[in-house]
Amino acid sequence: MAIAGIDIGGTKIIVAVADEQMNIRGRARFDTKAERGPLPVVQDMKNALHRLLKETGVPVESLSSIGIGCGGPLNRRTGVVLTVPNLPGWNGLPLVDLFAEEFDCKTLLENDANAAALGEARLGAGRGFEDFAYFTVSTGIGGGIIAGGKVYHGTDDNAGEFGHQIILPDGPRCNCGNWGCLESLASGTAIARRTREKLAGGRFSKMLEMVGGDIAKADAQVAAEAARMGDSLALDIWEETGKYLGLGVANIINILNPKRVVIGGGVSKVGDLLFEPARRVAKARAMRDLARVADIVPAELGDDGGILGALCLALEPEG
Amino acid sequence: MAIAGIDIGGTKIIVAVADEQMNIRGRARFDTKAERGPLPVVQDMKNALHRLLKETGVPVESLSSIGIGCGGPLNRRTGVVLTVPNLPGWNGLPLVDLFAEEFDCKTLLENDANAAALGEARLGAGRGFEDFAYFTVSTGIGGGIIAGGKVYHGTDDNAGEFGHQIILPDGPRCNCGNWGCLESLASGTAIARRTREKLAGGRFSKMLEMVGGDIAKADAQVAAEAARMGDSLALDIWEETGKYLGLGVANIINILNPKRVVIGGGVSKVGDLLFEPARRVAKARAMRDLARVADIVPAELGDDGGILGALCLALEPEG
Repeated sequence: MAIAGIDIGGTKIIVAVADEQMNIRGRARFDTKAERGPLPVVQDMKNALHRLLKETGVPVESLSSIGIGCGGPLNRRTGVVLTVPNLPGWNGLPLVDLFAEEFDCKTLLENDANAAALGEARLGAGRGFEDFAYFTVSTGIGGGIIAGGKVYHGTDDNAGEFGHQIILPDGPRCNCGNWGCLESLASGTAIARRTREKLAGGRFSKMLEMVGGDIAKADAQVAAEAARMGDSLALDIWEETGKYLGLGVANIINILNPKRVVIGGGVSKVGDLLFEPARRVAKARAMRDLARVADIVPAELGDDGGILGALCLALEPEG
Repeated sequence: MAIAGIDIGGTKIIVAVADEQMNIRGRARFDTKAERGPLPVVQDMKNALHRLLKETGVPVESLSSIGIGCGGPLNRRTGVVLTVPNLPGWNGLPLVDLFAEEFDCKTLLENDANAAALGEARLGAGRGFEDFAYFTVSTGIGGGIIAGGKVYHGTDDNAGEFGHQIILPDGPRCNCGNWGCLESLASGTAIARRTREKLAGGRFSKMLEMVGGDIAKADAQVAAEAARMGDSLALDIWEETGKYLGLGVANIINILNPKRVVIGGGVSKVGDLLFEPARRVAKARAMRDLARVADIVPAELGDDGGILGALCLALEPEG
C-alpha cells in the first residue's frame, strides 16, 4: 500500500508518494499560480499525483490515503477550504471530495501549521512527546497544539493561532486587523518592517550597503546576513525579535504546560540569533515550575515539514 | 452508592456527601486553620466526612469515590500536594493515599481551578460544550481547559494558568515574580492595588468616604459598591479591569478556539461592570472567525463551584 501527501502553499505546491513506513518514493514540486483560480490548480495536483503513482509503479488501487495540508481557515470535517488569504477563489472548494472521488481513497485535510506540528510529532522534534506546542515563524506566525499525542483542533479547527496572541496591546497593526499581536512583532514581515524603520531612522548599518541604499529591499533575510557579520543594528533587531517571541512562548507554556516547544518556519532558520533571546525571555517570564519542564528547540524537518506533515496526516485515523 | 467531595481552600474547607445523581445529602464547612500544618487539617476533613456519612445514613462501604479539589501545584497521578502558597507545610503530602486508606475507595485529586471548570462542564455553564475555557477571577486568576469534554492537564497538571499570560510586558509586578501578567492587572488583589493608587493620586471618589479616609481599606468590594452608586473613579477601575480581562480572554480564544468562555470566581460576581468591557474587548481583539463562535458567559455554580467540582471529579474515571 502507498500513501500520498500534498502541501499546498500560496506560491508552490509539493506532492509526494510514500510507503506506509514514510519512505518517500517520489515527489513533485511546482508553482501554484493561484491567480488562475482553484480548478486548474486542483487539476495540476491530480495530474502530478497520477504521474508520480505511474513513475513509482504504484497502481491507483494501492493508494490507501491522501493527506492534504493547506492554509486555513478550513473545515476539516467537511473537507472544504474557507477564506485562505493567499488562495483567492478557494472559499467553499470541496477539496477532500475532489481527491477522494478521483483516487477513491480516504482523504484528510488539515491546516498547514497543524500538519507541520503533526509531522514534528511523528517524525521530528516532537517524537515521543505527548504534549507539545509548535510555532511556525515565517511570513506570518502560526501554531499547532499536540495534546495527548494528537492535534488539538478546538471548536472549528482554528486552535493554535499563537501568532495572534496580544503581546503589546498598543503595538503595531497586525495583518489580522488587530494591534500588537505576536505576528506583528516577530514574523518575517514584522522583522522587515522594523528593519526598514530603523534604517530610515538614520542609524548606520551594513544593511544600507547590502540593499544598495534602497531601504525598501531590507528584509529578515538581509537582517540575518548582516547580524552574522556582526552588524550591531541587525543584532539589535534579532535580540528584540527573540524577546517578543520569548514572551509568546512564555504565554503558551503557562497556558498549555507543554513538555516541549518546537519552533520552525523560515525565519527560525536564523538559529541562535533568534533562539537565544527567545529561550532566555521565555524561561524568565514563564512560571518557574512550567518553564523548568518545557525545553525550547528548533523544528527538525526544515523545508520538508509541510510535505512530511501531509504524509503523516494520511496515516492518521479519520475524524 | 454515595460519593464525597472535598474543597480545600487556604481559609475554609467544604466537605459534602452526595448520591451519584449529584444530589447533595449533607455538607460541612469549617475553617482550615492552615497554620496548624497539614495533619490536623486532614484529621478535621476525615472527621467531617465520617460524621456526614453517619448523619446521612451512608455506610462507609457504600462510599464509592472521593473527589478532592485543592490549590495547585499538585501531582494528580501520585495524589501528592506540592508547594501550595496558602497551605504551608503541605509540600509532599500524600493526600490521596491518606483518604483512600481511611475510606477504602477511589480518591481523585485535582487543582481547584480545574475542579471548578469540571463542575461547570458537568453541571453549569459548560454543559454540552466539548471545548471551553474557564477563568476564575478572585484573589488571583486561575483557569481550566476543557478539551473534548475532559480537563486538559498538560505535562504536569499545570495547564490553564490563564492568570499568568503576559498582557503588559512592562506592567506591574505579579505574585508569581513576573511582570504584567493578567493576574497583576485584573485580579481582586490588582483591583485593590489600582484603587488605592488612584485614590492616593487625589482624584475625588465616594470610596474615600466609604473607607473612612483610610485608603488601605479600599479593595475590589469597595470599588464594586462605589461603581454601583455611579462613582466615576470606581467605574473607570472596572472599565480598565474589564479591558485587561478582555485581552486575556481574546488570547485564550485565539489559542484554544473555544466554543465558550466561562468566567467565575468572587470578582466576577460584580457582573456587567466587568463582563461588558471584557466582552467588548475580547470580541474586538480576538480573530473574527474565532470571536464569532465563542460566547463569554458567567459561571453558573457560584460559591458552590468548588464543592460541586470536587463531587464531579469523584465521578470521573481514574487516570
